[in-house]
Order: sequence, then C-alpha cells, then structure tokens
Amino acid sequence: MVKTDTKRPLVLIINGPNLNMLGQREPAVYGNDTLVDINVMLEREAERLKLSIETFQSNSEGAMVDKIQQALGRAAGLIINPGAYTHTSIAIRDALLLLDIPMVEIHLSNTYKREDFRKTSMIADIVTGRIVGFGAFGYIMALQAVEQRVQR
Amino acid sequence: MVKTDTKRPLVLIINGPNLNMLGQREPAVYGNDTLVDINVMLEREAERLKLSIETFQSNSEGAMVDKIQQALGRAAGLIINPGAYTHTSIAIRDALLLLDIPMVEIHLSNTYKREDFRKTSMIADIVTGRIVGFGAFGYIMALQAVEQRVQR
Amino acid sequence: MVKTDTKRPLVLIINGPNLNMLGQREPAVYGNDTLVDINVMLEREAERLKLSIETFQSNSEGAMVDKIQQALGRAAGLIINPGAYTHTSIAIRDALLLLDIPMVEIHLSNTYKREDFRKTSMIADIVTGRIVGFGAFGYIMALQAVEQRVQR
Amino acid sequence: MVKTDTKRPLVLIINGPNLNMLGQREPAVYGNDTLVDINVMLEREAERLKLSIETFQSNSEGAMVDKIQQALGRAAGLIINPGAYTHTSIAIRDALLLLDIPMVEIHLSNTYKREDFRKTSMIADIVTGRIVGFGAFGYIMALQAVEQRVQR
Amino acid sequence: MVKTDTKRPLVLIINGPNLNMLGQREPAVYGNDTLVDINVMLEREAERLKLSIETFQSNSEGAMVDKIQQALGRAAGLIINPGAYTHTSIAIRDALLLLDIPMVEIHLSNTYKREDFRKTSMIADIVTGRIVGFGAFGYIMALQAVEQRVQR
Amino acid sequence: MVKTDTKRPLVLIINGPNLNMLGQREPAVYGNDTLVDINVMLEREAERLKLSIETFQSNSEGAMVDKIQQALGRAAGLIINPGAYTHTSIAIRDALLLLDIPMVEIHLSNTYKREDFRKTSMIADIVTGRIVGFGAFGYIMALQAVEQRVQR
Amino acid sequence: MVKTDTKRPLVLIINGPNLNMLGQREPAVYGNDTLVDINVMLEREAERLKLSIETFQSNSEGAMVDKIQQALGRAAGLIINPGAYTHTSIAIRDALLLLDIPMVEIHLSNTYKREDFRKTSMIADIVTGRIVGFGAFGYIMALQAVEQRVQR
Amino acid sequence: MVKTDTKRPLVLIINGPNLNMLGQREPAVYGNDTLVDINVMLEREAERLKLSIETFQSNSEGAMVDKIQQALGRAAGLIINPGAYTHTSIAIRDALLLLDIPMVEIHLSNTYKREDFRKTSMIADIVTGRIVGFGAFGYIMALQAVEQRVQR
Amino acid sequence: MVKTDTKRPLVLIINGPNLNMLGQREPAVYGNDTLVDINVMLEREAERLKLSIETFQSNSEGAMVDKIQQALGRAAGLIINPGAYTHTSIAIRDALLLLDIPMVEIHLSNTYKREDFRKTSMIADIVTGRIVGFGAFGYIMALQAVEQRVQR
Amino acid sequence: MVKTDTKRPLVLIINGPNLNMLGQREPAVYGNDTLVDINVMLEREAERLKLSIETFQSNSEGAMVDKIQQALGRAAGLIINPGAYTHTSIAIRDALLLLDIPMVEIHLSNTYKREDFRKTSMIADIVTGRIVGFGAFGYIMALQAVEQRVQR
Amino acid sequence: MVKTDTKRPLVLIINGPNLNMLGQREPAVYGNDTLVDINVMLEREAERLKLSIETFQSNSEGAMVDKIQQALGRAAGLIINPGAYTHTSIAIRDALLLLDIPMVEIHLSNTYKREDFRKTSMIADIVTGRIVGFGAFGYIMALQAVEQRVQR
Amino acid sequence: MVKTDTKRPLVLIINGPNLNMLGQREPAVYGNDTLVDINVMLEREAERLKLSIETFQSNSEGAMVDKIQQALGRAAGLIINPGAYTHTSIAIRDALLLLDIPMVEIHLSNTYKREDFRKTSMIADIVTGRIVGFGAFGYIMALQAVEQRVQR
Repeated sequence: MVKTDTKRPLVLIINGPNLNMLGQREPAVYGNDTLVDINVMLEREAERLKLSIETFQSNSEGAMVDKIQQALGRAAGLIINPGAYTHTSIAIRDALLLLDIPMVEIHLSNTYKREDFRKTSMIADIVTGRIVGFGAFGYIMALQAVEQRVQR
Repeated sequence: MVKTDTKRPLVLIINGPNLNMLGQREPAVYGNDTLVDINVMLEREAERLKLSIETFQSNSEGAMVDKIQQALGRAAGLIINPGAYTHTSIAIRDALLLLDIPMVEIHLSNTYKREDFRKTSMIADIVTGRIVGFGAFGYIMALQAVEQRVQR
Repeated sequence: MVKTDTKRPLVLIINGPNLNMLGQREPAVYGNDTLVDINVMLEREAERLKLSIETFQSNSEGAMVDKIQQALGRAAGLIINPGAYTHTSIAIRDALLLLDIPMVEIHLSNTYKREDFRKTSMIADIVTGRIVGFGAFGYIMALQAVEQRVQR
Repeated sequence: MVKTDTKRPLVLIINGPNLNMLGQREPAVYGNDTLVDINVMLEREAERLKLSIETFQSNSEGAMVDKIQQALGRAAGLIINPGAYTHTSIAIRDALLLLDIPMVEIHLSNTYKREDFRKTSMIADIVTGRIVGFGAFGYIMALQAVEQRVQR
Repeated sequence: MVKTDTKRPLVLIINGPNLNMLGQREPAVYGNDTLVDINVMLEREAERLKLSIETFQSNSEGAMVDKIQQALGRAAGLIINPGAYTHTSIAIRDALLLLDIPMVEIHLSNTYKREDFRKTSMIADIVTGRIVGFGAFGYIMALQAVEQRVQR
Repeated sequence: MVKTDTKRPLVLIINGPNLNMLGQREPAVYGNDTLVDINVMLEREAERLKLSIETFQSNSEGAMVDKIQQALGRAAGLIINPGAYTHTSIAIRDALLLLDIPMVEIHLSNTYKREDFRKTSMIADIVTGRIVGFGAFGYIMALQAVEQRVQR
Repeated sequence: MVKTDTKRPLVLIINGPNLNMLGQREPAVYGNDTLVDINVMLEREAERLKLSIETFQSNSEGAMVDKIQQALGRAAGLIINPGAYTHTSIAIRDALLLLDIPMVEIHLSNTYKREDFRKTSMIADIVTGRIVGFGAFGYIMALQAVEQRVQR
Repeated sequence: MVKTDTKRPLVLIINGPNLNMLGQREPAVYGNDTLVDINVMLEREAERLKLSIETFQSNSEGAMVDKIQQALGRAAGLIINPGAYTHTSIAIRDALLLLDIPMVEIHLSNTYKREDFRKTSMIADIVTGRIVGFGAFGYIMALQAVEQRVQR
Repeated sequence: MVKTDTKRPLVLIINGPNLNMLGQREPAVYGNDTLVDINVMLEREAERLKLSIETFQSNSEGAMVDKIQQALGRAAGLIINPGAYTHTSIAIRDALLLLDIPMVEIHLSNTYKREDFRKTSMIADIVTGRIVGFGAFGYIMALQAVEQRVQR
Repeated sequence: MVKTDTKRPLVLIINGPNLNMLGQREPAVYGNDTLVDINVMLEREAERLKLSIETFQSNSEGAMVDKIQQALGRAAGLIINPGAYTHTSIAIRDALLLLDIPMVEIHLSNTYKREDFRKTSMIADIVTGRIVGFGAFGYIMALQAVEQRVQR
Repeated sequence: MVKTDTKRPLVLIINGPNLNMLGQREPAVYGNDTLVDINVMLEREAERLKLSIETFQSNSEGAMVDKIQQALGRAAGLIINPGAYTHTSIAIRDALLLLDIPMVEIHLSNTYKREDFRKTSMIADIVTGRIVGFGAFGYIMALQAVEQRVQR
Repeated sequence: MVKTDTKRPLVLIINGPNLNMLGQREPAVYGNDTLVDINVMLEREAERLKLSIETFQSNSEGAMVDKIQQALGRAAGLIINPGAYTHTSIAIRDALLLLDIPMVEIHLSNTYKREDFRKTSMIADIVTGRIVGFGAFGYIMALQAVEQRVQR
C-alpha cells in the first residue's frame, strides 16, 4: 500500500484479483509493466495534478469491499480495476453505491476481445465512466478524468 | 460480535457485505437504523422470547462460510441476510446445507423493487422461509418465526 | 366472510384459489390448519393489536379484483395470498396499484422449493413486503407487520 | 351496461379489469375521465356515425368471454380494451376468433412506456388494428375506424 | 349440466372456455359436433361401460376450480379439456392436485399444429395421460382409459 | 416382426429404441408388459376391428426411416412410438411426411413427468393425434383411433 | 415533398423505406392507395382541421434522421411510419428524442399478423401513441390525434 | 468538416447520427458543448500533441462507411463515436476492419446508465480501446491515447 | 456501374457495403480479386449465357433499396451480396419482396466460419437460393442459376 | 451405388435420409427428379469436367459416417446433402473433419423457407461452401465448384 | 472386437463414431494412439486388475444401443466414450438406464476447449463418473475406477 | 496444511469451500471420508509415485487465489476441487491461467446429478482434464494423471 501527501484531494486506486501478478501474467494481453511500475507512474502523475493517491490491491472480494467503505468521507475520487470481480461482484457494486464521488472503472486489456463472460460489468452503470484497453496508460487517463471532475 | 446467555437455545444472526454501513447507506432504501441499533433491538426481543443470540457481520464470503459452519451442533436456529451474496453465493448455500435447523432469510429492502439481479436468491429454496421488505422490524419477525419453530 | 368491529383500522385479508381447501390439500406442504382455523387465529391477534379485519377467499381472479377495489378508502392495510394467481395475474396487480396502504404478500409454503413457475410473483415489487414459508404463523407475522406500518 | 337504438349496426364495446376505476386510478397515466364519461362521449359519437353501441365492463375473464360470445350474429363491430388480460388471456383470443367482424384493440395509456410484460398482446394479431396511447380520445378513433370498415 | 345414475363410479367431465361454442367455432379445426352431441355420445358410452358421468362447461377459470374441488371424495375419475386455460392456469393445476384419481387431459384439435403458445400445458405432468387431436372421438377414448384405470 | 392377413387395411406399428426391452426396463415407469405381450394384444384387437397389422421394432433411426418409407402405398394407417428418437429425429419426421394416412404418436409413460428434454416431440405437429401415458392400453386406443379414421 | 400554408401549426409526416412503392407492393397487405393518394387525402383533412402539413419519404435512414432534426422548433406535431426501420433504428429514435411535440407512430398493415421481427418497435415507448392496421385511413386518425393534442 | 496541417500524423475523428445536435439534445445527458466546441478543443489539443486532425459527422451509416474507407493509407489513428450505429452497424465494423491503426471508440454519456440496447457495441472488440462517460473531455483523452500509440 | 446490351434479359447484380474494397480487405478471407475483376468476369459469362447485366455497389442501405426498386419491371433476375446488411436490413428485404423474379443471395466467404452475427440472413427465406463460400467463382454460379431459372 | 472411371480425380457424392424418395416426396418442395435422374445428370457433367464420381445414399447416420471415412486418401472432393441429419449430426461433422479436401454442402429446397429447425447446419462452418435452394441443378453447380477447387 | 477370459468380472468398453479413426484424426487433439493400441493397453491393465474386458466400436447409434442392451446380466461394469453421440443421444441414455452397474463416461480430449455443443452430455447425470481430457491414459483410469467400484 | 519432501516434483492440492466439512456433510452425496483421511491417502500415493504434495483448503475465494499464485515456479502439477467456486469464480480461473503445468479439476460427487447451476465450470476449459463423481478415489486418479503428465 502506497500513500502520498494527504493534504491534497485523495484519489483511492483499487486493483482486484491477480493484478499483483502483472508483468508475469500473459504479457501479450496485459503488457510488461508490474503493478509497482504503474503505481510509481501514478505517483508522478498525481504530483503533476496536485492530487494525493492511495493504492490498494487484493485478491479478496471482501477486502476490496472493506477498502471501498473506508473511502467514505476521505476520498475525493476513486479508480477501480476490479479484475475478475468486475463481472460478478454485487458486493463491490453495493460498496461503491455508498460513495458520491467521481469513480472510474478501468481495464488494462480490451475485455471485449476475450471470453464472453468478460463483456459484462456489475459496476459499469454506477461509475462516472469507463476506460478499457489502453494498458497501463489507462490509469493515467483515469487520474486525469478524476482530476477534471474534482476540479469542477 | 454480541453474545448472550448461552444456556438458552442459540440463534445465530449473520449479516453479509455492506450491512455494517446501515444508516449511512441509502437511508431511503434501508432506513436509518444502524446494525448496532438492530442488534440491541434483537437482544431485547431474544430476552423476551427466552432465546440466546449471537450476531455476526462480514464483508467476506469466506468468513461467512466459516461462521455458518460453526453453527453445526451449537445453534438451534439461524437468521441470515446475505446481502449481495444472496444472489450469487453457492458457497453460503453449501454451508447452510450442513445444518438441519430452522433458517430464515431476511432482507431489509424489498429487493423486487430494485435491479433485476436482486430478484433471485441462491438460498431461497433451502431455508425455512423468507422475510423481505419490512426493514429492521423484519429481524424481529424472523426471531419470532425461529422461536415458533424451535418451540415445536 | 368474517367481519369485526370496524371502528378500528381495517385490514383486508384476501386468499386466492384453492386456499379454501387448506387442511385437505397436501398437508405435508400446507399444514393441517384450515382457512377457518387461520381466520379465528387472526381474529384473536387483531383483537390484541386493536385492529379490525375482514377476510375473503375466492377461486375467481375477477372476484378477487372486485374485492381489492372495495378496499379503496376503507382499508388501512391489506394482506394477500394470491395462491396460483401470484404468478400470472396482472389484473390483481393493477387492482393493488389503486391502493396506497401497507400491503403484505404471504405464502404458506416455501414456493422456492417447488415448481419453477412458482418462483415469480406478479405483485412482489408493488407490495410493502413478502412473507414466505412460515405456514399459518406467517399470517400472524403479516398482521403485525401491517400494524407496525399503520402505527407510523 | 348502456344500450342504444338497435336498428343501427351494433358495435360492442368491452372493457376489462380495473377500467371501472378510471379517474380514480393513476390519473397521470390514465387521465381523469371515468368510464361513464367515456361511454357518454361514445354515445354521442355513435349518434353522429349512425351506429348503435353496447358497452360492457367486467373484472372477470370468464364474463368477458361470455359477452364476446354473445356478439356472434348480433354485432357488426367490436372495440375491446382487455386491460390486464391483454397480455395473458388465450380465452379472450379464442372467443374473438369466433367472430368475423371488424375488431379494434384499444389501450388508454401507451403500454410501451410501462412494465415489460405490458409490451405483448395475446390478441394483436387477430384484430383489425390497434390504437394505443391516445387516452379517452382513442375510443372515438376506434369507433370511427369500425364505422369506416362497416361502411365498406 | 347432465347427470346420470350416481350409483355407478362417477366420472366428472369438465370443458373449459369457448367449448360451449363447438360446432360454431372454426369447424375445420374442431369439427361439426356440438358439446351437446358429445355429451350425448358420452352418456351412451358411459352406459356401455357401467359408469356414471357428470358434465360441466364454463368460460370462467374460477368456476372450473370450484367444480374440480367438488370432485373430491365424489368422483372416481376425471376428464378435462381446459381449453385456453390449458396453457396458463396454475389454479386449475392446483385444484387437480387435490385429487387422487385417474385424470385424462383431452384436446379436440392437434394443438401442436397451431400457435406456439398452445404447445405447453400446465397440467400435462400431473394427469394420468393425454389424448390430443382425435376430435370428439377422443372423449370416448378418454372415458375408456378412465374406466380401464378405475377397474384396476 | 409380426404380420397378419393383408387383405384387410394394414396398420403399420413402429416401435423405436429400447422398446424391445419393455418389461425389463424401469417397470415402475413402463409397466410389466413386454413388447410381445403388447403385439399379441394388438393382434387380438386388430382381429376385432377387421384390420391387419404389421409390427416393427428397431434401435436404429435409419432402420425406422427405411420401414416408414415402405408404408408408402401399402399401409392405411400408422402407429408410432419413436422412443428416444421422438425428441430429436428430423429424419423420422421427414419419412412420415411422405405418407398421407392417419398416424398416431404414442408413448407408454407420461413423458411430461420426466426429464425436460422428453417434453418436446419432432413429430407431434404432423401426426393426426397423440396418446401419452396410458401404458400398453394406449396401443389399443391408438388402433381404435386409426380404425375410426380409416372408416371415414 | 408537399407543403401547405405554413401559418397554421405544422405537422410533419414522415414515411420510411419502400412506402414510395405503395399500391405496387403486396396490395393484399397494404391496399391500393399510392403514397400520393394518401398525401392528397391528408391535405384535405389538414385543411378541415386548420393544420399545415409537410410530407416526406425516403429509403435512407440517415435522410430520415436529417428530416426529423429539421422539425426542431418548426413543427407542432409529427406523424411517422418508419417502415422497415421501425424495428431496428436507434438513430431515428434518438432524433425523435430531440423533439417535445405530439408524435404518432403509424403502420398501414397489422404488423402483428406478419414476421416476428415486425412485432417490435424501437420508437413505441417514446411516441405519444400508435395506430396499427387501419390502412390509409390510419393517417387520417393520426392527424386527428395530433390535432387533438395540439389543441390542448 | 475541419482539416489541419497534414504534414503531421493524421487522426480521423468521426461522429455518428444526431451528434450534430449536441448542446440541443438532452443537455442533462450529453452536456452543453456543441460539436463545434468539441472540435475547436480538439484542434487545440492536436496542436499541443503535434498531430493533425480531420473531423467528420454524418447521420448516414453509408456516408460513415465511405469516410472510414478513405482513412486507408492516410490516417495514423482514428477516433469514432458511432452514436446510435454503435449498437447495430456491422457495415461500420467491416469498414474499420480494413484499417490497421490505433482506433478509439468514444461515448459522451455513460451508455450503461441508459436503455439496455445501448449496452452492446458492434465494434468494441475490434478497436484498441473504449472511453465511455466522460463527456467532451473524453475526446481529449482519446486523442492522447491515440498519440501515445502512434508514438510507439 | 457497368451496363451491357439491354435487348437480352437483364440481370441486376447488387453489392453492398465495403465490397468496393475487395482485394484490399482481408485477402485471406475474401481473395485477391477486386470488384472490377469480378464484374469483368461476369460480363464475359453473361455474354456466353446471352444475358445482359447491370452491376451496382453502394455502402448505403437506402441507395441499395432505391436500386432494387428500379428492378421492378426491368430485370429478369437479380443477384445480391448485401454484405453487412445481410444480417440486419429489413428495408432491403422489403424491397426484394416487391419483385417476382429469380433472386440469388451470394457471399464470397463462408460466413459460417466467422462471427455469430454473420450466421443469420434477413433475406435467406425470400430469395430463390443461396451460394456461400465459393469466392468470386460464386458469382458465376449465381449467374448460371439465374439463367437456368429464366430459361424455364 | 454408381461408380465411374477412377483414374480421374474422384468426387464422392453423399445423400442422406429420405433422399432416396425424391420425386415421390413433396414434389412442390423438392421437384420431380428422382435421385437416379440426378445421378445420371451428374455422370454426364463429371464426364464433361473430366472427373470421376461415386454416389451413395443412406437413411442411416452411421452408414453415412462409414462412407465419409472411406473418402480418406481416395477422394479429391466431396458433395454432401445430409438431409435431416444436417441439423443434428455431430458424428457426420466429425467424419468430415477427418478430410482435407474441398467439400460442398447442398440442399435441394430453400431450407430457410421451412421449419425453424431447418435453419441451422452442423457442418456449415467446416465445408468449403454451401448451395441452397436450386433444386437438382444445385448438384451441377456443386460439381463445378469442386472441380474449380481441385483444379487449383 | 476383442474378448478376454470371461470367468472374471466383465467390463464392457464401448467407443462411438469416428473413434475407429484414432491416430488418423486430428492427432494434436486426440493423440497418436490408435484404438487398437488403446485396447491392447486395456487388455494388459485388465490382466493386472483381474478383470475381463470386451471392446466394441461403432459409428451407428443403433448398434451402440444394441450392444449396451447386451450388457444386461452379463457385465459388471461399463466404460463408454460415446463420441459425437455424447451430446445428442437419448437412445444411448435410455439403454444405459437399463443397467445397474458402475458406468464411466470418458473423453480423450478436453471437450470444454472445443465447440460449445461439446460442453453438454446426455449421459453425464446417469453414469457413476466422468473422466475428460487425459487422452488414452483416461481409459486406464476408467478401468481402475470401475474395478474399485466392483470390488466394493 | 500438509507438506512432504520437496526435493521431488511438487503437486499442489487445493480444496475449496466446505470441503473441510467432509464426512459431516451429506455423507450420502460425499462419502464418509474426511479431508484428513483423503490427505493421508494422497501422501501414501505420492510416496509410491515419487511425488511431493502440498495440501490446502480454504472457504475464501481470495485465499485460494493467493495460494494458486504461489504455485508459480514451485509446483510441477496442480489438483483443484474448487467446490462451490467452480461455478462462479473467474478470479480462480485467472490465477490458474498464470500457470503452465498439468492441472486436474476434481469433484467428489457427480455434479451432473444435482442442481442445474452445478453443471457449469469456470475452469473446465483451461485445465488438462476433469475427474467427476468417483469420491475420494478420484484424488488418487488425479495424482496418477498428474504424474503421468509430469513424467513426459
């Protein structure tokens, strides 16, 4: 877990199951960057955007729900890549429904090129927007999108 | 976790993900009572009915399964609000199948007024009965229903 | 048809097709109580709760619609077990939509343990709440739930 | 039931369940006219068109079937708003199949703006035509359409 | 309604909606025999088989349920052509479930040659057997089949 | 294969896969009669009805098609129990479409009480009628039904 | 394209693909009137109703969208027969969503008597009402319905 | 149509039906920016990224296909908001399949919050990635994403 | 557009969206022949068969409908490769229904080896026959098939 | 079975169930040619194309599989009309998968004009191409198509 | 067909269509072993396990049914790889239902990696167990599993 | 957790939710062996096969994912009984996709004899093979299958 200067608006960045294996897992699909690489990149971008970020990864649906609940009253924005739980987790959806802040759903790979069950998302209709298929760069886009909303 | 005098028949009361946020989460849908309020209310009713209760909440499917398994040979009845896991958890269903005691499924809101995926329950056909839509009062009804069955 | 002191808030209790055969029909599923037994029990509970009740049973969808329409402006609450019409009757749904009072849907047996077509209800999303699977005792629970709402 | 001069071609006008509550039922959806208002309006239009009308309303599917059967050999045209039975009644369909006269299906509200189950009609493919969503005025349109067919 | 000598085993013969119009309704599909013709024919066959019959027709689902309930403890067998209610009536199914006697479902026309919704039956799996497509002669076959079962 | 006096109208009786095992196969479902018992019974009934019959059984779809083709120009009627092929064989359907004679589909057990895939028939809409659930007696009924049609 | 006196409220009348072939195309289904005949008839009726009309036909979905967009701020009402695009065009739906005026969907033939894909409409839930199956006369009904709304 | 300095890598930006009405159409859903505003904004961003852009809008599926075909051999990247054609156009999909350049699908509103038919995309699995729900700002994100890919 | 001697029977050959890109588009799937190559080949074959041909290609559904309408009374046969519109266009279907001449549907690639949505055709049931998967040679086969029908 | 000079490339022509009845079976659908007529015609065409053919017909799925297996290493091409097995036979599909030669699927009638279950083919995606609806002439087309492929 | 010493418990091993081509058919999927290789291997393993085996292969569904019927009263266990008939044959299912012995369903390849229609099995729920994806070695596993059951 | 000599190839054996209750849970379905019994048995078999094993059980999906990730680079094979998560867990599927070793999916009971939702597996198409229905003995079979693959 990485934390930065919390005087700035906080953006919580949550990654779901198997994203801790980035770089080791099907690089043709997910790229060579590790999650640490992405977090470092995000720290740098947050600095540029005058945002504070907190990153979190877990393989457990329950732990992800716990974390999202902690955003209540603390975070100004949220970026989430729920990984495999994207397609099935109503619990994560319900936790997100607790929040009234800009939320971005992000996926590294283009999920539409893959198995049919990856074509649905249990949270697509409750987030602000979705960014799909741009690899690690998508996280940068997501942070900018959150910043643009927080600004308003 | 709240425990009462265990010489009386024990009723295990299990609440699933996000129910720890009751009162903070969409009060128009779920009411203003917190889970603590409900548990206090249940303690009082259990006292009146000469029952002992044990309450438990978790955001984790696995932890809920662990807890249900512990009811085996200890609990005389069980009340469960599986929250989001209602609609997807076969693991909770399988754990409940271990037990041969009265079991009540309860939901605070009328799940039929909401998204389509909330219309199904993975445990409806294996519990004794279901109570849906009566808010916090539904827990009192559930305790009475368990008591009425335990009595027989 | 049984009527009680109408100075108290009136709760209309409507039973659908084949519920007049209670006690004779699959006792393993529906219990041994007859509808008369249940009505007597409800009269006693209504007395305790300071409510007035009016009970009605019919095998005819149209007659049930007629009866529900008569609740308009007279009844403070309604309890309905639509029996087989639960799963198909839009006419009963439309009649209930005329009313703006607490309404409870009740089923004696756990309909989820039975044929697939018994898993849906045409009125579930327009009633206050549902009580399923607690046998005759469910009617007592329903009356209490109505009373709790009328009180407010 | 309203009857007019029977020397003119007779148009039978049948209204199904809950249409007797028009004006009291969700006026935002169905308008403020009562069924009596509509029938008076139809009498006036029938007079203008040199037609005789007979109006009928019932909450009972069976009674509607009985009435439709009576049109055989008597009526020159038929207008029907089957209400809730639109979506489920094969019996009404079969009764209409007995007749070989112009038949118009009419709905006050635009049923396509409502629940999914209101999007189908068991009689749409056996009537001459359908008029949906024009409120009470739709009955006038229906009468004109019947007249135009009877004329030929 | 036709009744015969009741000292013999009684077979209740129930016909559903629009079967009172037999002979007038699509003769190409249903044949020229009226329901009276069929009942006379059945009387003669019952005489030959030493059975007593009671025939009943109604356009009302509720009235059919009422009638079936009356078979309880009186009838030794039942023949039913539920007409349009075949495909939708759970209420008739539930009424038949009250009985523990040979029951035959019969249809005059071959329902499989017609609209898709006529291909299902809500009672097919709870009757003894089904006879479909043999016109009026099917009733004779049904009576023989009941007799053969009652004999055992 | 059993053949009788061919001067009389010939009825071809075709039984599909596993019907050669009747009596040995789930007697609770199919009864104790063997196929030979049934054929003897049919011979006797054919004698009474002045019909000639030819019986055939095969486990092979192709052999059944071959046999049905041979009915062309020879048989006055056909009775078929396609067994398992009922639910899947378009080849048998196509062979039957070659014939323009009364055809009866028969099943010993009530197929609707069994697996879902036994609820459909590939030939139901092209035969004269269907007899389902009356055991061996159904064959007698079928022969009578054919005779009644041949007579006309 | 036919235009009339524009000082009166303007009703835009849009016809979709193949409606330019009316009279030549399956007259049994669509009648003998050409689109010109219908437009002349509509001019006459518009005169009577003190309305101005503008008629348009195109085989191109895009051209229909262009035309509908031009209604914005000009037309007081709109009548549309989208022809084949009824069942598939989201673009036409989106264009209509730009307008806040009475809109009538009309079909010459009873689309429910035809192929299954003609049973759905992409615009049914966003228009004021629908008129289906009354041939050319339906356009007159539509104009009256628009006039009745514009009047209010 | 807006064109910029073509010595730089060209990005083709294509907008589909009704996007020419931006600002006039449901501003709550699509925002107040007009398409001209967005194009100006894109010009500025292209300048910053050293890219050249060409913008195009049409209500016609065929014209969009024509335009996409022209990208072959000219454009280094493509951004497309197919509007209503997103959900149905195989022709646009096929045209895009001609190209082997980075392609971004973009939607202004979060299409998942809207009608069910807006949840599918005929091109999602053949583009590089998708950006959904960020309003006009999404176009800036798309341009950056294309630039990031072109750079490599 | 290519035209030949019109004294001979005219065969109209219509190609849909993206077929103008033949040779450039996925040659592994569609082959290396351009549409011009195919048309030249067809001219030669038409010469041999004593037929006149007119070829047409468009990316616009509406333009294809326009063209098909022009065949009425002029063409003796029609060959159509509707490309992407095969799977969705009811407008093209309706236009073809205007004609009463031999019509052949043709596809270059075997559409069954590709995406699921390419497995259906909106015109398959209204053309004379279909030729799928034989590449450019399929057009020659189609012309021969038309000639064989025109001959009769 | 008909065999010709085997020094030339061999094309195996396989016909499935009921095709032996051609000429006798629904001539309106299948034409008057018998299978012998077609085979004679094919012999003549094979002669012209310098091909050798071997023809085979069976009503048995297993026999068809046996025959297809025999093509391995012997045949240069294969033409198959699997008749009713088209829609269900995975065994025939698997046998064809053994071969790596041009294969043509052919149907005499336009199967899309008929029952829904005739709209699918278990082999469409593994053959070279399909020819549907051209009657006996389709076999000639198929032979030419095979020849054209064998030539390359 | 291979037979061994029948004094030991007999295990019948049945292989369905195209399994006679093992080694020649898609070796990447099915391996290089021929069916003879597998049978030799099974003989050796049977020897070790003190079992007798009888092996059988056919491309004909009917012949497979014939063979299974012969197991009745003779075999102590059965191993079946129904090949393509796995997914469609109710006849084989019915034949297996005659037996009350351990039965193992086996597939060489992992059928779940292949076409969708290979994901279902008509016999999975009536056999003792299933072994899928282990190639020829799976037969050894199956024999051991049968032996383990026969032992008990 | 049980570990053995790690110098030998390691096989990871993972059991999912409720498998810790083996022996206590529906013995008729799952047998009397406890998970400890099975592990002891597996240790013995591993010894015989010169393999090392590591066993793991958890009720938590996340913990199972954690464990599977740890196999990367350590284990030579994997055996998994995902219990209830078989049917829903994409997270476990994704974790398994990280590994490139022989993997066996195993189920104690024949899941096809049970509820419909137990008929699907989220991992069936990515494992080497599946063993279903052989009780505790299936684990032995699985170990042998892994060993046979590791050997190669």
